[in-house]
Amino acid sequence: MEKVTTDICIVGGGPVGLFAVFEAGLLKMKCHVVDALPVVGGQLSEIYPKKPIYDIPGFPEILAGDLVKNLEKQIAPFHPTFTLGERVDGLEKLEDGSFILRTSAGSEIACKVVVIAGGLGSFEPRKPSIDKLEQYEDKGVVYMVRDPEQFRDKHVLIAGGGDSALDWTIYLAGICKEVTLVHRGSTFRGAPESAAKVLSMAEEGQIKLILKSNVTEVHGEDTLEAVTVMVDNANPYKVDVDYFIPLFGLVPKLGPIEDWGLTLDKNAIAVNTLDYSTNVRGIYAIGDINTYPGKLKLILCGFHEAALMAQSAYNIIYPDKKFVLKYTTVNGIQEI
Amino acid sequence: MEKVTTDICIVGGGPVGLFAVFEAGLLKMKCHVVDALPVVGGQLSEIYPKKPIYDIPGFPEILAGDLVKNLEKQIAPFHPTFTLGERVDGLEKLEDGSFILRTSAGSEIACKVVVIAGGLGSFEPRKPSIDKLEQYEDKGVVYMVRDPEQFRDKHVLIAGGGDSALDWTIYLAGICKEVTLVHRGSTFRGAPESAAKVLSMAEEGQIKLILKSNVTEVHGEDTLEAVTVMVDNANPYKVDVDYFIPLFGLVPKLGPIEDWGLTLDKNAIAVNTLDYSTNVRGIYAIGDINTYPGKLKLILCGFHEAALMAQSAYNIIYPDKKFVLKYTTVNGIQEI
Ligand SMILES: Cc1cc2nc3c(=O)[nH]c(=O)nc-3n(C[C@H](O)[C@H](O)[C@H](O)COP(=O)(O)OP(=O)(O)OC[C@H]3O[C@@H](n4cnc5c(N)ncnc54)[C@H](O)[C@@H]3O)c2cc1C
Ligand SMILES: Cc1cc2nc3c(=O)[nH]c(=O)nc-3n(C[C@H](O)[C@H](O)[C@H](O)COP(=O)(O)OP(=O)(O)OC[C@H]3O[C@@H](n4cnc5c(N)ncnc54)[C@H](O)[C@@H]3O)c2cc1C
Repeated sequence: MEKVTTDICIVGGGPVGLFAVFEAGLLKMKCHVVDALPVVGGQLSEIYPKKPIYDIPGFPEILAGDLVKNLEKQIAPFHPTFTLGERVDGLEKLEDGSFILRTSAGSEIACKVVVIAGGLGSFEPRKPSIDKLEQYEDKGVVYMVRDPEQFRDKHVLIAGGGDSALDWTIYLAGICKEVTLVHRGSTFRGAPESAAKVLSMAEEGQIKLILKSNVTEVHGEDTLEAVTVMVDNANPYKVDVDYFIPLFGLVPKLGPIEDWGLTLDKNAIAVNTLDYSTNVRGIYAIGDINTYPGKLKLILCGFHEAALMAQSAYNIIYPDKKFVLKYTTVNGIQEI
Repeated sequence: MEKVTTDICIVGGGPVGLFAVFEAGLLKMKCHVVDALPVVGGQLSEIYPKKPIYDIPGFPEILAGDLVKNLEKQIAPFHPTFTLGERVDGLEKLEDGSFILRTSAGSEIACKVVVIAGGLGSFEPRKPSIDKLEQYEDKGVVYMVRDPEQFRDKHVLIAGGGDSALDWTIYLAGICKEVTLVHRGSTFRGAPESAAKVLSMAEEGQIKLILKSNVTEVHGEDTLEAVTVMVDNANPYKVDVDYFIPLFGLVPKLGPIEDWGLTLDKNAIAVNTLDYSTNVRGIYAIGDINTYPGKLKLILCGFHEAALMAQSAYNIIYPDKKFVLKYTTVNGIQEI
C-alpha cells in the first residue's frame, strides 16, 4: 500500500507502457507504472519471454525477455517508480482535472495524466473451479508467488503442469517443509529439462508428485488446513497443507478498465490518432488496449503511439511551455 | 540504366524505406528501392553515421550507421533489389492502375504500388555559384564520387573543407596523377585525424593544398580543361585539370516529387493515417516526407507508418486474399 504523486501514471508495464516512460522522460515528465503482474514486460514476460521476435525495427531477432531488459535500461535515466503485483481498480477525475488511481491493494496514485497501456487487460490467474475456493483466498490459497519467503518451512501443495508449476515446485522444495505437486496429466507441458528435474526430485523423495490427479475440495476452519486430491477420477484422499497454489496460467481481463467512462469498441478503448487520447481529457490509451481505424496489435505500433501521446500530455503538464521537437542525437538524454 | 518489374517500388532508401521492405516482405510482397545517394540509410548515412541515437525503442544507444546496418540485415531474407545513385524523376500511372517510375539515369521500374519514403527530399549536391559551371557537368565537373576509377591517372582538383573533401583527397591521391585540394578557410571542418593526414600529405608533396582560396572560373573548349583559383580574394591563377570535384555537402530537395499530382502540405505529402496513403490510389508516403495531424519527424514513427502501409498495399497486390495478422514470433520469417 503506497501513496504516490507523479506527473503521469501508466497503467500497465508491458513494452508499450515502458517505452511511454522514455518518451515522457525526454519531455521531463515523471512517470509511475502500475502492473498487476509482479514483473514488468506484460505479454512478453508472462507468455513468451524466451521466444524470438523478428519485427522489432533494427533487431533482426531479439528474445522477448531481452527486449524488456533493454527497455528497462533505456528508461533508467528517467527514474520511473513502480507498483507491481497490484491491479488498478478505481480511477477518479478530480475537479482540477487531475486524477486519483486506486489499486487492489489500496495504493493511491495522484497524477495529472493517465496513460492506459493495459494490453489485453490485467493478467489474472485462471482459477480452478473448486467449491468454496474463493473463501480461502489469501488465507492459504495463493495464485501468484510474489514472495517465496512466505512459504518457508510450510507444507505447500502446487497444482499444474506448465512452466510456472514446475519452476516453483523446484524452487520451493529448497524452502518449504514439504512440497507436493498435483498434475492432471501424466506428462508435463513445461520445459523438458524442468519436467525431468521434477521427476528426479520425486524419485529422490525431495518432493511428492501425484500425477493423473486433481484437487477437488478445500478444507479448514477459517484458514486453509487441507485439500482433497482425487486420483484417477476415483480415489479421493485428504492432504494436510498450509498453502495451496493452483498455477494454471494467467488470462488477461479488461476488468475494471471497462468502468472508467471511456468509449469502448470491441473490448478496446477508442482513441484519436492525433495523440491517442480517449474521450476523457487527460486520459490516453496506447498499445494493444486501444483501437482506431487501421489498428495493428504490434509492439512497434505502440512505440509510435507512445511518442505522439507524450507530445500531447506535455501540453497538459506544462500548459505554459511550447513544445519543440529535439533530436536525441543532437540533445542527448538528460536524467530527471 | 536498368529495367525492373516488382510489386512495390520504394522511393528512398532511408531507415523508413528500408523497414518498409521488411513489412512488405512479411506479407510476401517484393520490393525495389531507388535512392539518389550511392548508399542506403538516408540522413543517417549522409548526415550523422557516427553519432548515437537514443530514441530507437529497445536500443538505449545505437550509432546511426549501425542502425542502418541492422536494418539491412533484417530485410536480407526478403531479397530486395536496389538502384542507387539515381533520382526518381518521373512517375506515370498506367490505365490498369500500375505505375512506371523513371530515374535521372533512364532506369525504369514497373510496379503495382509506389511507396515514397523520400525523407526531406533527394540529397542533391550543394553547387558553388561559378559562371558556366553547369555547362561542364559530366564533362569534367562532378559533384559526387561514385566510381573512383574514373579518376585514375588524371589531374583532379577538389574543393571543400568537410569530411567528404578530406576523405576523397586522401583516397584519390593514391589513384590520380595529381590531386589539388582548394579550401576557403585555413582550418578544416572535417575530422581532426583526416585534416592532420591531409596536411602531412601536402608537406610530403603527395597532394597540392591551396588554403584561403576559392575556385572562381571554369575553362575549356567542350570539356573542362582548367579552373581559376583565387587566392586570398586577390591573386587569381589558372590550374590545368581533367576533373573539378566541388564537395560542399548535399542538401535534400523535394524536387520532382512536387510534380507527381500528390496533395502537398508545407513541403510534405499529405496522407491518411488509416494507411498512410496519398490522394492517388496505390501511392503511399511514409517517414519524414509525409504529414498528418500530430506528425513527428522521428524514425520510430516511420516504422509504424511502414507497418500500416504494408497491410493496405497487400489489398492492392493480392486483391483476392484476406489479410490475417500473424505474429513473427509465432510464424517466423519466410524468405521470398
Ligand atoms: C505468443 C505471442 C507472440 C507475439 N509475437 C509478437 C511479435 O512477433 N511482434 C509483435 O509486435 N507483437 C507480438 N505479440 C503481441 C505483443 O506481445 C503485444 O502487442 C504487446 O505485448 C502489447 O504491449 P502492451 O504494452 O500494449 O500490452 P501488454 O504486453 O499486454 O502489457 C499490458 C500490461 O498491463 C497490465 N494491466 C492491464 N490492466 C491493468 C490494470 N487495471 N491494473 C494493473 N495492470 C494492468 C497487464 O497485467 C499487463 O502486464 C505477440 C503476442 C503473443 C501472445
Ligand atoms: C543531425 C540529425 C539528428 C537526428 N536525430 C534523430 C534522433 O535522435 N531520433 C530520430 O528519430 N530521428 C532523428 N533525426 C531524424 C531522422 O534522421 C529522420 O527522421 C529519418 O532519417 C527519416 O527517415 P526517412 O527514411 O523517412 O528519410 P531519409 O533518412 O531522409 O531518407 C530519404 C531518402 O530518400 C531519398 N530520396 C528522396 N527523394 C528521392 C527521389 N526522388 N529519388 C531517389 N531518392 C530520393 C534521399 O536521397 C534519401 O536518401 C535526426 C536528423 C538529423 C539531421
